[in-house]
Amino acid sequence: MNSTSDHRAGEPIAVTFSVNDRSYSPPARPIVVICVDGCGDEYLSTSLAHGRMPHLAAVIANGYRGMVRAALPSFTNVNNASITTGMPPVGTGFGGNFFIEPETGEEVMMNSSKYLRCGTILAAAAKVGRKVAMVTAKNKLLEILSHDLEGIAFSSEFANQAQKSTHGIENVEALVGLPTPSIYTGDASLFVLTAGSKLIEHNLADFLYLSLTDYMQHKFAPHTTESLDFYEGIDTQIGNMLKLGAVIGITADHGMNAKDKPDGSPNVIYLESLLDEEFGKGNDVICPITDPYVVHHASLGSEVMVYLKDPSQTAEIADWIFQLDGITEVMDRPTAVKKMELPGDRIGDLIVMSARDVVIGRNPEYHDLSLIKGGLRSHGGRYEEMVPMVITKPLTDEYMAKAAKDPRNFDIFEFVCNGTHNR
Amino acid sequence: MNSTSDHRAGEPIAVTFSVNDRSYSPPARPIVVICVDGCGDEYLSTSLAHGRMPHLAAVIANGYRGMVRAALPSFTNVNNASITTGMPPVGTGFGGNFFIEPETGEEVMMNSSKYLRCGTILAAAAKVGRKVAMVTAKNKLLEILSHDLEGIAFSSEFANQAQKSTHGIENVEALVGLPTPSIYTGDASLFVLTAGSKLIEHNLADFLYLSLTDYMQHKFAPHTTESLDFYEGIDTQIGNMLKLGAVIGITADHGMNAKDKPDGSPNVIYLESLLDEEFGKGNDVICPITDPYVVHHASLGSEVMVYLKDPSQTAEIADWIFQLDGITEVMDRPTAVKKMELPGDRIGDLIVMSARDVVIGRNPEYHDLSLIKGGLRSHGGRYEEMVPMVITKPLTDEYMAKAAKDPRNFDIFEFVCNGTHNR
Repeated sequence: MNSTSDHRAGEPIAVTFSVNDRSYSPPARPIVVICVDGCGDEYLSTSLAHGRMPHLAAVIANGYRGMVRAALPSFTNVNNASITTGMPPVGTGFGGNFFIEPETGEEVMMNSSKYLRCGTILAAAAKVGRKVAMVTAKNKLLEILSHDLEGIAFSSEFANQAQKSTHGIENVEALVGLPTPSIYTGDASLFVLTAGSKLIEHNLADFLYLSLTDYMQHKFAPHTTESLDFYEGIDTQIGNMLKLGAVIGITADHGMNAKDKPDGSPNVIYLESLLDEEFGKGNDVICPITDPYVVHHASLGSEVMVYLKDPSQTAEIADWIFQLDGITEVMDRPTAVKKMELPGDRIGDLIVMSARDVVIGRNPEYHDLSLIKGGLRSHGGRYEEMVPMVITKPLTDEYMAKAAKDPRNFDIFEFVCNGTHNR
Repeated sequence: MNSTSDHRAGEPIAVTFSVNDRSYSPPARPIVVICVDGCGDEYLSTSLAHGRMPHLAAVIANGYRGMVRAALPSFTNVNNASITTGMPPVGTGFGGNFFIEPETGEEVMMNSSKYLRCGTILAAAAKVGRKVAMVTAKNKLLEILSHDLEGIAFSSEFANQAQKSTHGIENVEALVGLPTPSIYTGDASLFVLTAGSKLIEHNLADFLYLSLTDYMQHKFAPHTTESLDFYEGIDTQIGNMLKLGAVIGITADHGMNAKDKPDGSPNVIYLESLLDEEFGKGNDVICPITDPYVVHHASLGSEVMVYLKDPSQTAEIADWIFQLDGITEVMDRPTAVKKMELPGDRIGDLIVMSARDVVIGRNPEYHDLSLIKGGLRSHGGRYEEMVPMVITKPLTDEYMAKAAKDPRNFDIFEFVCNGTHNR
């Protein structure tokens, strides 16, 4: 058997499959969806302007670059769950990283696949014979989204712990040619992309989801040298995957904005403290950005939920919160379910969002501001909702028309699988 | 006297002046602020990706490109008033194109400088000896903003009517080398930019405000040939002004989104009709996008005001409107004054905004949909609030820090005058 026939034997198969009421017909070539965590569109514009993303520049001249609307609240788990399922949060069950379990009254971190309420596109693709790989930077995402996936799934965070039996792969460091990175680095993301490239090159995967981490975006604005270097690294790996014949879709889970006062200190509304003062103790503020990676943001984001002591005060407290400077939107639970497509049993009595430069916290004791002494950049609200979508091949007329309406970031697998010319 | 000394005699003077509590220190070179009407950031990204804006690409590699927050509602008069004064709407008095005069109950189109509540940066610059020129596409803007301006002020719409005594210039067509364009063309905007370039070249102006029209953006999405050609034309004129030594700031009054249903018909909520049905007649919906240029949008935008028959129903009707599909925000007057920085006596009892792909109308009879049979693209709401800001010179550290917070489009004169290196 020569290498040509070997390659043919390993070529991706073109099959159609359906999941969550959508049909996907990926072409017979490597398919890659990249979620660049925290990639506000300015990161692409600035890195392109400085000539640091030549491969991206070449593909968007012929393919597509536009804006899509993420799921709200604009957090990582919420949007990764939506992107990998094609469903809004009401379908995935992920309306934040944290909620209060109605039965127990306990705060729960949703860090397991048991909280996911629908199947993933990745699992469905594997079932029809695509060689699926999911590589994430943060291990938490892997635990949520790799359920039922017959394929490869590992995180760069714990790359050196991947086992064939549990992760579908082993000796990841040797494959990638890099050591397991610290999660608090840009390398945690570049490892993911390099791994994707190596998996395609070695014919181990032809249907990939690569989800990065926003450590760099939390710490560095688009014009900084650190950010430009990081995006150049991303571009190099995009180039490698393009050389291997991949069609790539790139989007983000959320954008990122500076949330500082003019003096550089974080611009925080400590909502639970204010509610304690005004209405007495017992109204609980939950910060759904909270996750194990607190160095990023000290659990300070631009959306929180309030669980009220006395539901009869809902309208009164909602109105009172809305009058606070820096608060931009307040919705009660039924309204949030309707307007934000959130799962009603996993959210608080009130959903509260803040301005472009404002975050909402619980109380001063709850947040360790020393973690963000270089300045706070964060997300979660309406001002981090719009994110880029890049498709490296030209879209068909049908999908150009869809892209020109109000596409979502969780449509990206459909765009990449069904929407391109030159398949 | 030779040409060199001639040129020296005509060089811009470097003076500092103050207006509306800000100080401006423009460098001794031509200063140009361009408001590209309706220029959502995607227009720049797409035109750059297709290689159609080489001059812009060259300057943003060294200068600055980022995002700024426009004034809400995201309409033309509102933002042109803010940009030329450095003030939010509460300071300018412009919270829309239309309002109901409290004394008379009459609907008033704010098409005159008598509605402007503060002085302009342009008039202030002229008073200290800068050679100021304001060129707009739409004549309506000229009438509002050229008050008290000792300099040149004309519109491309009526370029051939400009007189020395009233406009500070005559024979404009000969100067520009182009005939007066129709307002419903891209040429209406390109004429403005060409005029700017010629005014600098002939030493007639050294402090310019050039405000385009969004006819093209209303009619064409960023990826269309028509739009790409138009932006190439813009770029050519930017190049000409750069060659003449100008430092240029570019921003927009608002973005632009498609507002169609999947079948291509406009996605309209006829709010006054719905209020008539639910609450009886007498609650008036005002569409503040309404202006003489209805071909653009048939008076359909993503923000309206409601004047209530019975103010005691404010909370009830606000809640009812907020529950309508496609409505994203409803504020009563005091809240809108506070959150949107609007002038309380020029707005309705309720301010209502709609989703990325939704517009709000009065009733079916009021809007002539035949004007927008090619598809509706419009603006006015939160989804058209974020706009680009480009500065063609590198920013100082101080202004890079400002740009990284929550800058506004109406900060642009300050950025151009005070914020650049290599002055």
